[in-house]
Amino acid sequence: MKCETIIKARYAETDQMGVIHHAVYPVWFEVGRTEYIKVSGLTYGELEKKGIMLPVSELTCRYLNPVKYDDEVILETCITKLSFARICFQYRVLLDGKVMATGTSMHGFVSSETFKPVNLKKVMPEYYQKLTESVESDNND
Amino acid sequence: MKCETIIKARYAETDQMGVIHHAVYPVWFEVGRTEYIKVSGLTYGELEKKGIMLPVSELTCRYLNPVKYDDEVILETCITKLSFARICFQYRVLLDGKVMATGTSMHGFVSSETFKPVNLKKVMPEYYQKLTESVESDNND
Amino acid sequence: MKCETIIKARYAETDQMGVIHHAVYPVWFEVGRTEYIKVSGLTYGELEKKGIMLPVSELTCRYLNPVKYDDEVILETCITKLSFARICFQYRVLLDGKVMATGTSMHGFVSSETFKPVNLKKVMPEYYQKLTESVESDNND
Amino acid sequence: MKCETIIKARYAETDQMGVIHHAVYPVWFEVGRTEYIKVSGLTYGELEKKGIMLPVSELTCRYLNPVKYDDEVILETCITKLSFARICFQYRVLLDGKVMATGTSMHGFVSSETFKPVNLKKVMPEYYQKLTESVESDNND
Repeated sequence: MKCETIIKARYAETDQMGVIHHAVYPVWFEVGRTEYIKVSGLTYGELEKKGIMLPVSELTCRYLNPVKYDDEVILETCITKLSFARICFQYRVLLDGKVMATGTSMHGFVSSETFKPVNLKKVMPEYYQKLTESVESDNND
Repeated sequence: MKCETIIKARYAETDQMGVIHHAVYPVWFEVGRTEYIKVSGLTYGELEKKGIMLPVSELTCRYLNPVKYDDEVILETCITKLSFARICFQYRVLLDGKVMATGTSMHGFVSSETFKPVNLKKVMPEYYQKLTESVESDNND
Repeated sequence: MKCETIIKARYAETDQMGVIHHAVYPVWFEVGRTEYIKVSGLTYGELEKKGIMLPVSELTCRYLNPVKYDDEVILETCITKLSFARICFQYRVLLDGKVMATGTSMHGFVSSETFKPVNLKKVMPEYYQKLTESVESDNND
Repeated sequence: MKCETIIKARYAETDQMGVIHHAVYPVWFEVGRTEYIKVSGLTYGELEKKGIMLPVSELTCRYLNPVKYDDEVILETCITKLSFARICFQYRVLLDGKVMATGTSMHGFVSSETFKPVNLKKVMPEYYQKLTESVESDNND
């Protein structure tokens, strides 16, 4: 499964170089991740209500071409790895078919009360199964 | 009582006009407010732990001169009004003695659990007394 | 003319109160303003290319109800005043028909080279005429 | 050379997880980078005036422990690689001696007019020499 989100670059997101500031891309990635989770059958808000959070443990970003104010980019989000304890997302920012930036984020499943690791397969077996299938379909594409 | 906070304008806070973006000033005001509350004998974190929050109900800002990247501004914060239910802060952003921007914010005291109004004088009489004195000293300046 | 923009509240826009941070609303207002200008026949980018910028000179915001993560709000933008030298926008943030916040922004027309005031009627008479008509239609609604 | 910058976590930088949002760290890194360049004998503003910019081409961040509102962290910045064309910075965010996050950023030297690569050794030989020495002293520490 690959999730596509349209994002329009905001004026407030530019910097004095005249391009979108590099710290904005992780914010966009999060928008794509939210969308991906929703498409996979849950909302991130529901996850949090079930006491599960996905804090970012690692983030990478490569900036290939500058995105400018009012550009309407397509953000592609997919899952590259999934285990009981962690999930990895991959992102591509496209403008008119051209790759502007790529990125990854790794997240642990943690309890929203204790901030301690949670085994997603135990806590939400059905949802875990669903996610696994969507990762497999990604890898088969 | 007037509280002074030094703030250095960040690169990420600029926009493609080459100046600090206007939505950054409310963030700076909040930094000054945090500092003011700390100087008045409490931290904002302590207030939240006591179950009291100060969400912004009204905000105004006037932009007189553009602040630029790496400018080191002085932010002056004072309280202009205080009642059982609300508090008003006033801000001035100064660069080399020149006023770059002014602003105000109004806040209700609310419970962090119910988001309902709280009577600060009843819940924290000593702190309320302290704040009252600092407002009076402001007005006498 | 009234311009409606759909905005989905981002996770990065929340704060530890669990609601959208108050400094985010001016960013949303700007998104609505950009949209309004586009609908009126120009893009803000085109304005800047013609050497005209609309820096914010005054901003107000009233926060009536908290917006939360993933809420899909409707932002209404209209012009309330227009003269050769200035333009005023008004904003309403709605969630399921309920007003969550309102705001205003005032802007001077300035040269992007000199940052000095520009007479919009002289520099872009046709566009000025168009804007005037859209303000009048607003007031007649 | 290692540059230390004190940063106080802002309320606006928190998210509804109650911790500093992960997209804030790249903003802090930039504050450290600005400081490093200044200590090395130039300001980033001067570099831009000489027509040289350092856009980020790659960014990584590891989040080890959550930073909270009002925490006063120490940001350590150093250069790990330097060539005619690129520069790599490394960052550590410390709270009371504990590492909260680490990160890296890679930057190309580009012309602010053409956005094309610039040979720093040719354009600013003395400054390049200075930077080289500071990298060597880092590596000898």
